[in-house]
Amino acid sequence: MAEPGQVFSALKATCPDDWDAYVRHDFVRRLGDGSLPEACFRHYLGQDYIFLIHFARAYALAAFKSDALEDMRQAAATLDALINTEMGLHVKYCAGWGLSEPEMAALPEAEANLAYTRFVLDSGLAGDLLDLLAALSPCVMGYAEIGAWLAADPASDLSDKNPYRDWIEMYAGAAYREVARGAARQLDRIAAGRLGADVEASPRWPGLCRTFGTATRLEIGFWDMGLAPPG
Amino acid sequence: MAEPGQVFSALKATCPDDWDAYVRHDFVRRLGDGSLPEACFRHYLGQDYIFLIHFARAYALAAFKSDALEDMRQAAATLDALINTEMGLHVKYCAGWGLSEPEMAALPEAEANLAYTRFVLDSGLAGDLLDLLAALSPCVMGYAEIGAWLAADPASDLSDKNPYRDWIEMYAGAAYREVARGAARQLDRIAAGRLGADVEASPRWPGLCRTFGTATRLEIGFWDMGLAPPG
Amino acid sequence: MAEPGQVFSALKATCPDDWDAYVRHDFVRRLGDGSLPEACFRHYLGQDYIFLIHFARAYALAAFKSDALEDMRQAAATLDALINTEMGLHVKYCAGWGLSEPEMAALPEAEANLAYTRFVLDSGLAGDLLDLLAALSPCVMGYAEIGAWLAADPASDLSDKNPYRDWIEMYAGAAYREVARGAARQLDRIAAGRLGADVEASPRWPGLCRTFGTATRLEIGFWDMGLAPPG
Amino acid sequence: MAEPGQVFSALKATCPDDWDAYVRHDFVRRLGDGSLPEACFRHYLGQDYIFLIHFARAYALAAFKSDALEDMRQAAATLDALINTEMGLHVKYCAGWGLSEPEMAALPEAEANLAYTRFVLDSGLAGDLLDLLAALSPCVMGYAEIGAWLAADPASDLSDKNPYRDWIEMYAGAAYREVARGAARQLDRIAAGRLGADVEASPRWPGLCRTFGTATRLEIGFWDMGLAPPG
Repeated sequence: MAEPGQVFSALKATCPDDWDAYVRHDFVRRLGDGSLPEACFRHYLGQDYIFLIHFARAYALAAFKSDALEDMRQAAATLDALINTEMGLHVKYCAGWGLSEPEMAALPEAEANLAYTRFVLDSGLAGDLLDLLAALSPCVMGYAEIGAWLAADPASDLSDKNPYRDWIEMYAGAAYREVARGAARQLDRIAAGRLGADVEASPRWPGLCRTFGTATRLEIGFWDMGLAPPG
Repeated sequence: MAEPGQVFSALKATCPDDWDAYVRHDFVRRLGDGSLPEACFRHYLGQDYIFLIHFARAYALAAFKSDALEDMRQAAATLDALINTEMGLHVKYCAGWGLSEPEMAALPEAEANLAYTRFVLDSGLAGDLLDLLAALSPCVMGYAEIGAWLAADPASDLSDKNPYRDWIEMYAGAAYREVARGAARQLDRIAAGRLGADVEASPRWPGLCRTFGTATRLEIGFWDMGLAPPG
Repeated sequence: MAEPGQVFSALKATCPDDWDAYVRHDFVRRLGDGSLPEACFRHYLGQDYIFLIHFARAYALAAFKSDALEDMRQAAATLDALINTEMGLHVKYCAGWGLSEPEMAALPEAEANLAYTRFVLDSGLAGDLLDLLAALSPCVMGYAEIGAWLAADPASDLSDKNPYRDWIEMYAGAAYREVARGAARQLDRIAAGRLGADVEASPRWPGLCRTFGTATRLEIGFWDMGLAPPG
Repeated sequence: MAEPGQVFSALKATCPDDWDAYVRHDFVRRLGDGSLPEACFRHYLGQDYIFLIHFARAYALAAFKSDALEDMRQAAATLDALINTEMGLHVKYCAGWGLSEPEMAALPEAEANLAYTRFVLDSGLAGDLLDLLAALSPCVMGYAEIGAWLAADPASDLSDKNPYRDWIEMYAGAAYREVARGAARQLDRIAAGRLGADVEASPRWPGLCRTFGTATRLEIGFWDMGLAPPG
């Protein structure tokens, strides 16, 4: 496989409409131009706190399911980054929006959140490490695409006036881009190691596409949830 | 514990509003009086097919997690009943509504379905057998309550004119009632074996109530989904 | 794949010495000619009781990990056969050797037993359904081979004088042979569905051979344990 | 619970003979006085490399099964310490004994190793986080006891002449002692959170003692294996 990220590109190519509906979701556009109502963003942030915990559990599961030390190390590094760095940044960032950690920890988990996170975990338990990574990739790689797109989109407002500028800059930044690239390379490596060089010729390919497609639809559901805060 | 079903009653008592919203949901009432649009029922039936598969997986997980042969046998009997008897009845019943098995197997799984089934499975994997049974009980015992209530409710139409009469009779019938009672007794026994006689005094009680409450909310979401068929 | 059992044959061909050491183990030969000390057989029977429980858990896990209803049904049928039929026969058979069920349930589990059963379970949890079936197959198919070989071996004593005649006849019989054939066909089907037609060309093949080889070595360890009863 | 480590002490008190047989095993004594044959130590080191990988997987599982962020962080910290720090030290240490990492990674896993590591993992999957920690504690806390005992024992040779002095010093040192104390405190906290203040009054106590006792016996088996290098 020549270019890094080939498996991710191939998966995306099997569900272009859903992928676009996710990456260019109205929630995302309104983050870009700053028109998203604060209540929506705060609702999203609170649920994202819960999401991060289960996403971290998914990387713990990836470490458990790794049979090469290299894969275990990569999964453990992501787990560590999520619960020690990301979580801290998230909590600090949310404090700026008036959300405290105990408040977020006590929120009822939205159905969209339960559906997405538990689907990812179950994909990993019912299947193998590759199934788990296929379920994880729409989030990890999608957010880098969202960041890059928003940063480049003429409709975006990247000035001080956009209250969501920090958010955009985080996912458009070099650090997050590198995280997404690392995940794309890992997916390539694990796929090659389990399916061979021609991943699309494998009988498992349709199932992996279904997993990736479902996770993408569940990302759409997550943004939909963000647009519909309770009360 | 004197009466069978005490743990189930105690769990229900901690979320009475959600429990009522589930058992007396508009979807249920309209099954009762026969006013539910066919498109809703067919949507529900198709998703229920997928639900049954993952519910069966949950009982397989219960068998895997049992440390007493008696518990393994009970879980395996439910698994067998689900995939061999229930599934067959369901498929036959759905055929009468014009839904074929391959059609149902190819349906995209609704978010409400993913949320519920995968939450149950994850409760069992993250926790122990008791956590799993707490997550399973709103469905098993709730449907018996729904059946009994509909059969007794003066607003129900139990004549030939109600196209959902068979459905009501199945869940109101003695056979299903016995299934629900068996599950209630099993929950009592496993809870006593892990928490002691005074289950509500256990430090695990609040967590079990949260699990039960979330599963109950996800049942509500399942009915909501039924009322909103795609297209 | 033309003949049923091709994947099993290919796996066996990668560890012929270990396979022979398992199938033609001294414990087996001495069952055949009736010279095995009773204390060894009783020790084996007691540990086999515990083994069957965890083996049943492995089939429950297979049902949990199945994504096709057909596979779930096959796994559930084996689970049911193990805990309802086999276990009953085993308990009755052991009673004839003076071992009661509560006695066997209270035995400390031998290291060889722990190693084998938990390795099988972990293979299934760390990997996918195919990894699990690869770990299960030395037992299921090996016992049919052992039965057939003992029944045909001129050194075997199949008269009334051999106290182990019943045991040999069970595993040499048509019913068990059919069980083993079904398992071989399932392994073929799952392997084709995950690796494609040329299973040995898959990058997963060496890993599957390692799993199969380890399970075969653990069968040898189980017979070794049988020859060394405690006390 | 007043003193830290009370649950560990209570568990130990239920299997004093096995605990002594583990902590004061001949393998340990001969590390202390320097009389252990090099071949035994090298065999042990190689198997310990494989052991560490699966032990790290067990902490990944603990992170997956944690429902409090604090517990997830503690499990992830141990996972990180194992695969990034411990593993590196182990590899470097083993290089001093002429064992390279690829060599160790290619070793066939000993039955005693399979039995111990997979039993721990299965305890965590069949049960909950507390069952997993009960299975993990004989190793974590036992090695600190072994280090302290060897460092204090008049029969130990802590001079340059003892080739195993480094090993003793590592496990007798303050850093490792702190690791063991942290694990003991975590066990206390999780036990209190699941069983209440009087852990020994819980109906789960006998099962936890069985798990702890089996893990202790499997530690004995691990030392036995060390004394019997292949070839």
